[in-house]
Amino acid sequence: MTVEKMIRREILGITPYVPGKPIEEVQREWGLEEVIKLASNENPLGPSPRAVQAATAALAETHLYPDGSCYLLKSALAAELGVKPDEIIVGNGCDEVIKLVAEAFFHPGDEVVVADPTFGEYAYATQLMGAKLVKVKGEGLGHDLDKMAAAVTERTKAIFVCNPNNPTGTMNTRAELEAFIARIPPEILIIIDQAYYEYVEDAAYPNGIEFKGDGRVLTLRTFSKIYGLAGLRVGYGVGDPELIALLDRTREPFNVNRIGQVAAVAALADRAHVARSLEMNRRGMEQIYRGLADLDLSYIPSVANFILFSTPYLATQIFEEMMKRGVIVRPAHIFGLPRQVRVTIGTEEQNNKFLNVLGAVLADLGKEP
Amino acid sequence: MTVEKMIRREILGITPYVPGKPIEEVQREWGLEEVIKLASNENPLGPSPRAVQAATAALAETHLYPDGSCYLLKSALAAELGVKPDEIIVGNGCDEVIKLVAEAFFHPGDEVVVADPTFGEYAYATQLMGAKLVKVKGEGLGHDLDKMAAAVTERTKAIFVCNPNNPTGTMNTRAELEAFIARIPPEILIIIDQAYYEYVEDAAYPNGIEFKGDGRVLTLRTFSKIYGLAGLRVGYGVGDPELIALLDRTREPFNVNRIGQVAAVAALADRAHVARSLEMNRRGMEQIYRGLADLDLSYIPSVANFILFSTPYLATQIFEEMMKRGVIVRPAHIFGLPRQVRVTIGTEEQNNKFLNVLGAVLADLGKEP
Repeated sequence: MTVEKMIRREILGITPYVPGKPIEEVQREWGLEEVIKLASNENPLGPSPRAVQAATAALAETHLYPDGSCYLLKSALAAELGVKPDEIIVGNGCDEVIKLVAEAFFHPGDEVVVADPTFGEYAYATQLMGAKLVKVKGEGLGHDLDKMAAAVTERTKAIFVCNPNNPTGTMNTRAELEAFIARIPPEILIIIDQAYYEYVEDAAYPNGIEFKGDGRVLTLRTFSKIYGLAGLRVGYGVGDPELIALLDRTREPFNVNRIGQVAAVAALADRAHVARSLEMNRRGMEQIYRGLADLDLSYIPSVANFILFSTPYLATQIFEEMMKRGVIVRPAHIFGLPRQVRVTIGTEEQNNKFLNVLGAVLADLGKEP
Repeated sequence: MTVEKMIRREILGITPYVPGKPIEEVQREWGLEEVIKLASNENPLGPSPRAVQAATAALAETHLYPDGSCYLLKSALAAELGVKPDEIIVGNGCDEVIKLVAEAFFHPGDEVVVADPTFGEYAYATQLMGAKLVKVKGEGLGHDLDKMAAAVTERTKAIFVCNPNNPTGTMNTRAELEAFIARIPPEILIIIDQAYYEYVEDAAYPNGIEFKGDGRVLTLRTFSKIYGLAGLRVGYGVGDPELIALLDRTREPFNVNRIGQVAAVAALADRAHVARSLEMNRRGMEQIYRGLADLDLSYIPSVANFILFSTPYLATQIFEEMMKRGVIVRPAHIFGLPRQVRVTIGTEEQNNKFLNVLGAVLADLGKEP
């Protein structure tokens, strides 16, 4: 066929992302009535009721294009974050903001430094623009910022710092991040992905936005996690106005849908929902820690809304067996961790089901819980 | 500042898109209570009530990521269009599908042929990937397919055929398109943008999807126009499965939001709403034709849901004066037409207001209606 010969060669190197299985598909496939999904780090409490109410009202006008400038959402975010609206770029999820960074800045031959393991979208965006991904494995599974700084060459264009890191749930402190940024030459972009920012309660955890004065530091946040709006695709970046204006050139005019904008404004104002979500996460974290310990499984203490744990079996095997019993988790082989599994902290009831099913699967596979 | 030195040079050549002013902004700016917007070719009847109902129900689950494969929407579209699901790619509006085409196929040095005037997103996507835009002005204002075919060189990578063309509302016939495709060498992509497909009633108008067997022909359609879902950002492309699979590599995993997918499925099934919208458009078209003739203004007969007309004044002047009186239209200088204005066909009442205000503005500007 001719079309394959016409394609940019870079594209052929992209490993297509394999999303977690939708609940409906697992129900269909295994004839299950009740399926719970603890695979995509979504908020188990659901969306803010105020966001749903605002979105419902906005649907009557959904024949109109969205506000291309996200005027109201940027104003609300600016007030919340203590920044100016022109220091914010809003995307169709953070995925899109990551892509915009690559489109604006990455040339073939550029190097892009990331941790290993980390969120896969950095690799996708890097590959898309023909740049070279440099993966840095640290001691343990968190970001080794020293090693990442040491991986910088004169071809380095950007560094992604996923903080907390997905899939490990580990974090870097403010002091570590500050020292790291000071070490990195000024012509290198630093993207601090804080998708799970609102979950972190450690006092040493940094606010990436404090570094925006540096000019080349972009902090990412999202409405997909604690705000419970993953389905509506709203993420954003905060940085120096000049950096934002450059990124803005790569953006399509109506990239953020109308309902997402309205829902995000309402979700931001619903502090009670955020507080309830945080409290549930805190308790669920302890519940799962205890349960994993009871099952004799080791895990990495997490500052986010998910936990990475080790099993004596292949992650894909655990995943398959749990799915058949109605619990969807995330096998971490996709992050290069063949025997680890990532689980999202759910409601108390979901966490119980997860632990019971995991125990049963381990028993079946030959290990007594 | 350092960041500007780091950017891809291609990006600096992009002319940022200037969206039509949102109603709320015009209300604020001019202290107007009632403002009508006939600037973005939206459906004046609003979204399908069935789509709104389905979307409302889906909001309860908007904390969950969308189905990355758009399984249900592609199944519904496949049944409607008589194609297979793997012949469809869904985007965050057609804007995104156009960008995916550029990301998958356009290299620096490639040439991309478009008509002049035409929809601006082709230029943006071409520029983004560093390819060269070749604009072809025909006789009159429609697509001159002969001249476009003659503009093909050995560097040509793709040709965009906007049919009906935006902003002119003109079309190319099936015979013209067939002859054109036959003339274009097989290693050149042909993208047929049919965003206004559902409005066209001319028997000679082609269905681009009939050409998908050619392998390098991609047809674009959208839910933003007759389906009344511009705010939710759902557009799609139909083509050969191999072409679709290649485009799919450049797509982010969750590019189409959950509510948009659900609403699109419901809108597609609501044939009554489409029929009502078409009937209203038909009547509104005649109403505006008569009104423009009464005002002694010439226009291009349109097959879509908008009309391009000429004025003795600058389009920006007409636009400003009409806006102050609560009617937003689209000045066509952004398409390189300094004295022409594009108006979307509205409800009977909106069309009356448009014609009255236009008459008053022309009178004020010195021309008696």
